[in-house]
Amino acid sequence: MKIWEKGFSVNETIEKFTVGQDRELDMHLAYFDMLASKAQANMLAKVGLISPVEQKQLITGLDELLAQVEAGVFEIEPDFEDVHSKIEYYLTEKFGDAGKKIHTARSRNDQVLTAIQLFIKDYTERISAKMLALAEVLLQKAEKHQGDLLPGYTHFQAAMPSSFGLWFSAYAEHALLDLSLFEAAHRVADQNPLGSGAGFGSSFPIDREMTTREMGFGSVAVSAVGAQMLRGKTEKTLAFAIAGAAGTLGKLAYDLVLYNSQDLGFVTLPKEFTTGSSIMPHKKNPDVFELVRAHANRLQALPNDIILATSNLPSGYHRDFQLLKELLFGPMMEFANLLDILLFALPEIKVKSGVIEQAKYDPIFSVENINQLIIAGVPFRDAYQQVGRAVEDGSYVPHREFHTTHLGSIHNPGLAEIAAKVRRWKESSPLFKKLEA
Amino acid sequence: MKIWEKGFSVNETIEKFTVGQDRELDMHLAYFDMLASKAQANMLAKVGLISPVEQKQLITGLDELLAQVEAGVFEIEPDFEDVHSKIEYYLTEKFGDAGKKIHTARSRNDQVLTAIQLFIKDYTERISAKMLALAEVLLQKAEKHQGDLLPGYTHFQAAMPSSFGLWFSAYAEHALLDLSLFEAAHRVADQNPLGSGAGFGSSFPIDREMTTREMGFGSVAVSAVGAQMLRGKTEKTLAFAIAGAAGTLGKLAYDLVLYNSQDLGFVTLPKEFTTGSSIMPHKKNPDVFELVRAHANRLQALPNDIILATSNLPSGYHRDFQLLKELLFGPMMEFANLLDILLFALPEIKVKSGVIEQAKYDPIFSVENINQLIIAGVPFRDAYQQVGRAVEDGSYVPHREFHTTHLGSIHNPGLAEIAAKVRRWKESSPLFKKLEA
Amino acid sequence: MKIWEKGFSVNETIEKFTVGQDRELDMHLAYFDMLASKAQANMLAKVGLISPVEQKQLITGLDELLAQVEAGVFEIEPDFEDVHSKIEYYLTEKFGDAGKKIHTARSRNDQVLTAIQLFIKDYTERISAKMLALAEVLLQKAEKHQGDLLPGYTHFQAAMPSSFGLWFSAYAEHALLDLSLFEAAHRVADQNPLGSGAGFGSSFPIDREMTTREMGFGSVAVSAVGAQMLRGKTEKTLAFAIAGAAGTLGKLAYDLVLYNSQDLGFVTLPKEFTTGSSIMPHKKNPDVFELVRAHANRLQALPNDIILATSNLPSGYHRDFQLLKELLFGPMMEFANLLDILLFALPEIKVKSGVIEQAKYDPIFSVENINQLIIAGVPFRDAYQQVGRAVEDGSYVPHREFHTTHLGSIHNPGLAEIAAKVRRWKESSPLFKKLEA
Amino acid sequence: MKIWEKGFSVNETIEKFTVGQDRELDMHLAYFDMLASKAQANMLAKVGLISPVEQKQLITGLDELLAQVEAGVFEIEPDFEDVHSKIEYYLTEKFGDAGKKIHTARSRNDQVLTAIQLFIKDYTERISAKMLALAEVLLQKAEKHQGDLLPGYTHFQAAMPSSFGLWFSAYAEHALLDLSLFEAAHRVADQNPLGSGAGFGSSFPIDREMTTREMGFGSVAVSAVGAQMLRGKTEKTLAFAIAGAAGTLGKLAYDLVLYNSQDLGFVTLPKEFTTGSSIMPHKKNPDVFELVRAHANRLQALPNDIILATSNLPSGYHRDFQLLKELLFGPMMEFANLLDILLFALPEIKVKSGVIEQAKYDPIFSVENINQLIIAGVPFRDAYQQVGRAVEDGSYVPHREFHTTHLGSIHNPGLAEIAAKVRRWKESSPLFKKLEA
Repeated sequence: MKIWEKGFSVNETIEKFTVGQDRELDMHLAYFDMLASKAQANMLAKVGLISPVEQKQLITGLDELLAQVEAGVFEIEPDFEDVHSKIEYYLTEKFGDAGKKIHTARSRNDQVLTAIQLFIKDYTERISAKMLALAEVLLQKAEKHQGDLLPGYTHFQAAMPSSFGLWFSAYAEHALLDLSLFEAAHRVADQNPLGSGAGFGSSFPIDREMTTREMGFGSVAVSAVGAQMLRGKTEKTLAFAIAGAAGTLGKLAYDLVLYNSQDLGFVTLPKEFTTGSSIMPHKKNPDVFELVRAHANRLQALPNDIILATSNLPSGYHRDFQLLKELLFGPMMEFANLLDILLFALPEIKVKSGVIEQAKYDPIFSVENINQLIIAGVPFRDAYQQVGRAVEDGSYVPHREFHTTHLGSIHNPGLAEIAAKVRRWKESSPLFKKLEA
Repeated sequence: MKIWEKGFSVNETIEKFTVGQDRELDMHLAYFDMLASKAQANMLAKVGLISPVEQKQLITGLDELLAQVEAGVFEIEPDFEDVHSKIEYYLTEKFGDAGKKIHTARSRNDQVLTAIQLFIKDYTERISAKMLALAEVLLQKAEKHQGDLLPGYTHFQAAMPSSFGLWFSAYAEHALLDLSLFEAAHRVADQNPLGSGAGFGSSFPIDREMTTREMGFGSVAVSAVGAQMLRGKTEKTLAFAIAGAAGTLGKLAYDLVLYNSQDLGFVTLPKEFTTGSSIMPHKKNPDVFELVRAHANRLQALPNDIILATSNLPSGYHRDFQLLKELLFGPMMEFANLLDILLFALPEIKVKSGVIEQAKYDPIFSVENINQLIIAGVPFRDAYQQVGRAVEDGSYVPHREFHTTHLGSIHNPGLAEIAAKVRRWKESSPLFKKLEA
Repeated sequence: MKIWEKGFSVNETIEKFTVGQDRELDMHLAYFDMLASKAQANMLAKVGLISPVEQKQLITGLDELLAQVEAGVFEIEPDFEDVHSKIEYYLTEKFGDAGKKIHTARSRNDQVLTAIQLFIKDYTERISAKMLALAEVLLQKAEKHQGDLLPGYTHFQAAMPSSFGLWFSAYAEHALLDLSLFEAAHRVADQNPLGSGAGFGSSFPIDREMTTREMGFGSVAVSAVGAQMLRGKTEKTLAFAIAGAAGTLGKLAYDLVLYNSQDLGFVTLPKEFTTGSSIMPHKKNPDVFELVRAHANRLQALPNDIILATSNLPSGYHRDFQLLKELLFGPMMEFANLLDILLFALPEIKVKSGVIEQAKYDPIFSVENINQLIIAGVPFRDAYQQVGRAVEDGSYVPHREFHTTHLGSIHNPGLAEIAAKVRRWKESSPLFKKLEA
Repeated sequence: MKIWEKGFSVNETIEKFTVGQDRELDMHLAYFDMLASKAQANMLAKVGLISPVEQKQLITGLDELLAQVEAGVFEIEPDFEDVHSKIEYYLTEKFGDAGKKIHTARSRNDQVLTAIQLFIKDYTERISAKMLALAEVLLQKAEKHQGDLLPGYTHFQAAMPSSFGLWFSAYAEHALLDLSLFEAAHRVADQNPLGSGAGFGSSFPIDREMTTREMGFGSVAVSAVGAQMLRGKTEKTLAFAIAGAAGTLGKLAYDLVLYNSQDLGFVTLPKEFTTGSSIMPHKKNPDVFELVRAHANRLQALPNDIILATSNLPSGYHRDFQLLKELLFGPMMEFANLLDILLFALPEIKVKSGVIEQAKYDPIFSVENINQLIIAGVPFRDAYQQVGRAVEDGSYVPHREFHTTHLGSIHNPGLAEIAAKVRRWKESSPLFKKLEA
């Protein structure tokens, strides 16, 4: 039983501990580190720190590596401690001293920072496109099920009539609201730290505006000290965005788990989406939505994980920041996966018609009974008491006919207005600028 | 010793438990609930649910109450369970049935939601103005102390020369980045939930676009179900913004506590800002910054507090949400207070000149020594090793002269560029639209 | 609208900020600080640092103050910054120099630490008695409702028959398990830090074993550095215990909220325990249990609040620790209050009989149908499929008769065994030593 | 750039999502699931549900699998979804129907629960042995460096003389205190849930006391509902214990990172333990302790991760619980690894002698100067002011001679008393019962 038991030998121990999971995690950064290195090479040439020939060699080598990534064949072999060593090694093997010069006027700190900024910026754009797709799927379901009523609950008590139109479109609107935090994360990630070195700049005559333009960053993280302080902050801001959206997904999943129970029975899931029990032949468990909920909760813990790893550290680089990659990258993929699962599963949900007609939901029409009495001239307080007494003594007969007119109500759910919100996001947010182009 | 021991009698017990701290907390909402009630009254008149006379009465009564708030004399007496009862009581006492009609086509749920949305929207604007003021104070200090060098630390090890210009301006830039999250919170708070009733709308022919315009909301929270789901989400988004900014303030405070120690000694605080020890006459403790740090950490716990209170609850109102006021309003004030304390204390910090000249900081010029060798034609790797050996064998003589040129470095800190960032925020963010006007 | 807006003047500002809420919070510590001061006075006399006359004066004065606390008339007037100043002032006013000598060989640090240790130790004992009372109330309910069956749920799906005997006794057993963490907190709080001074001891010839015995501590926190490190650790351990138990209470409350819905309808609450709706006359909302759940969630956030306030601080006192009182004391009272509310409300819950007989719960007897087939010689897999097909095609007839025999099952719930666990806790845990005596 | 982008096909998608990382994680449970299955087989035979021949076959098969685990060759091949299927498959392949019978009167729920209980119980015992070893290493260092003084800090300000004897032994004492939480986790894990089935028991005539004895559990988790509720609770209690101890390790690491800086310089680390910089040849960074700190912070986030995954779920099994394995098992190994690293690295730390003699630490003797004046008859307040003035005007001459006598002070650090605490833990805690035997 030695699974977690380990004896160990000296230097290797410390080395292994300090390297951690860098190699695997760095696969996410490879593409972006190559892009940033290209910008660096072009800038170094422009300010005269490398020659045009060296520039061309470096760009050629980096383009080869980029092609490897795109073909899915790029690897960080076990002898490299991270992606950065691998890239530098490749360039040096190929071009000799020119390869080594890629690191001129750059420190490992600003190099890693830059790759992370680009990676997270790209991620926010891709994820936001998925969020928008989710909003659209939800709106389609809302459109389709406008006429399907279900009881609306407050305090877990059936309260008033509601509709699947309102319910689906509610989540569509919230998916849009969640974009606000991704926009914030995008803005923080849109700062260029390249050139800040180890966090205090350098005496090399580099041109930081040029690399900013080359990499498509919105602005320079001006102060070298402040640029270094992005480490942890960009991660935290993204964690907030993921946690915010995960909260929405978790609530959606919780609703579906409940709606799928025998006691409520408002939706059914295709058999292929449920799991059975090894001992109870009647069970069709909504595991997929339980797991969406569980993952959503795990993602809601993410900001705190990041905060604890970064809190109470003074300014300047600390090795603690290395752990941020491990804390963040996995959950980033997990969240993307959740969205994919929902985009795949939501269209398959079947809504049951007529559930609201069950007698147990009679009392939820009491507000309509009161309104009828008011129309007939009974003052509100009296009407409220009269209906209340009827519910109590069993003489209550629900007034099931009603018609709503206001925006966002059962018979006027405002789906066009929500679709217009989707369009406005697409057209005006920096999150979608690249997708458009 | 009965301080926390309590026996109790029946109904009162449950009532007291369920009312909680509502009365005190609702003082924050009073002003906004009155504004929303005015919009409601005007809308009810427009759609014919109340008469012009009733409208006028309600507006008059609400303006009287608003004047009370502004004069600081508004009270929620102990016989009212919350601010909403108090306001309705006041109007009813004064105008009879007209007073009662203010609640037509409105539920306690959307009423509270609307007041919270307005309150948080207003808060994000006020706080953002303070954050901007902080950025400006920091920039002034950066300007003043551009020439004051200090060692820059990585791994808690003195690493390279840095400057107070870079250090102060780093925090100025980060105060601006923190605005991104406040902008997100502002956008979520800028949705009008009024008219969503208990979360499922109503059959009253209300005009939700009109109340949206009257209260200055950016848009309608369309789906009634989605409007109700704002409860918890707006609070959470604000919590993220506060936690994000608190992280910056905490780091600033940590730096200052360290810089003020005998071992580093880079800054001094005015005597009036320090506290002594009851037994050690030499102590001048930087309590104010330790407490800023502690409060900043407490505020970084806020998102998690809110998430735990709202997670794993399906859609629809739950009484659990009542606790959100208690969880959020105190920390909101705490954060405003932290900013006030810093705006007050930062200008008083005294920076010590020449600290970098101490011999113990000689090694931090090693990078410059290497650069000199490079200029003299020695390849980087050789230069690195040569300087490394000199440090090791004690023959190292620091090359203390250096000049940096790139943006964000010691001799070109880019304060004008950062000032331009401040201006851009002021001019373009919705956070500052009202302040301008 | 200046509610949270504040301008301010100099020293006062800093002072007010640093004093915080100490005076109110210190009311919890008053009693224990007096006890500790008596032990200190007796020890100082024994080692000759004060005279027998001074000792007698101090003991007299402290006994007077203790009597004030017990009579509920002790006050910390606004001119004192904390309870410690108040006590010292009282003694000095009364006995002159003798009063001042109470602080000999003691620092504010170890004084506060000692009072907190005593307070938390006492709290864990009192709370554990309440937890035990809760277990007993739950066992009584289990006894009473042994025969009342309800569907047992997995995945929120009705799965198999269960009973209120199993359900109530489950929570009784868990209340006992939760005591394990209170025992851990008790042990950490049972260390005497008095004499550790500011965290590095002193050259006074004090007798720490004597004060340990006098105050009833289990052992001395030996290393002065380690004694100081109790600050934060004792609070955190208690926070774990509170959060652990709160998790149990929250789950109990969640079950009750669900069981009280129209869709399940397994329990009813007395009318006086529910609240109505301002617009829906049929609503009887289970607010009390929703709020128990909400507070339980808030208390589950407590460990993280404490951890964030104390993490990444090196050893030695930091002013940050002052905030721990604010973070912890309120929630401590909140948790005691929750237990009181449950001890009050649980006996009033009414269990509905026969709920399991509803046709919608027919399928939960499928396991019994299978068992019948197995008894009749059908292999398990075949029986499982046969019953599964019957459920699917509607021909299924539930086999509602069954009898369980094993410990912890419906017809043998093992309530006596659980009662024996209660007794074992009472007799053997240090938590209950004092109550017995 | 498709690293995290994925399209997908139907059932496979859902299956993959719901299976998650079970196979890898279950390697931790394999050994314990086999032990539990042996107990199950013996019990089934005793109550007559299987024959003696079947019992023998099952025990033989399970012993073979246990031997595989111990030899490190046990595998869960990709076609099995978890360890439980693998084991059942192995037994069925080998013994036909007898193999299938191992699952009689057992559900996947109580099977997993039982394996987790055994795994966590075993873990707490192994980890506690490591914690004790850590305490012993720390005590040895304390012994060796009793005479090495360093300044003691409060508020990050050098305050009073301290010693490495006090400092090392402080952490030894705290490692012991941390055992209290492991003892609590051990007690919760020491409950036998086997026989609770899917959380509601069964009508099989099983003998739960017998399996309890066979597996060495301290007691039966009596109520089947309560047994099921252990899922999440055991994990949470262990998470508290790990977080508590991680807090101690993180503080220790933070101290060492600071003590190793040029500004303090109280300890040095062997070169092999430090890392350099790619651009600064003088750097020797204490990465190993920074990473200990970072991992310790990550582990302090663990309770919250677990709480969020389990909070606001009513009683009964939810698929969400599957995620607990992923959330907990990795961090369990991470914590064990941290202890190994410290046990390896702490003995290598070199303490610098004489650091306290630096002039910058003169003021920390001011308390001794005051004590001298008091001995000479000057009243405390006067002495305090006299020394304070001397510090202020530069005339202060430190009184560097002092002798302490009380327990836990520099010259009487009480290492024997702390060693006695170690012994008491060893002899009396259930955590160490097995190790002794």
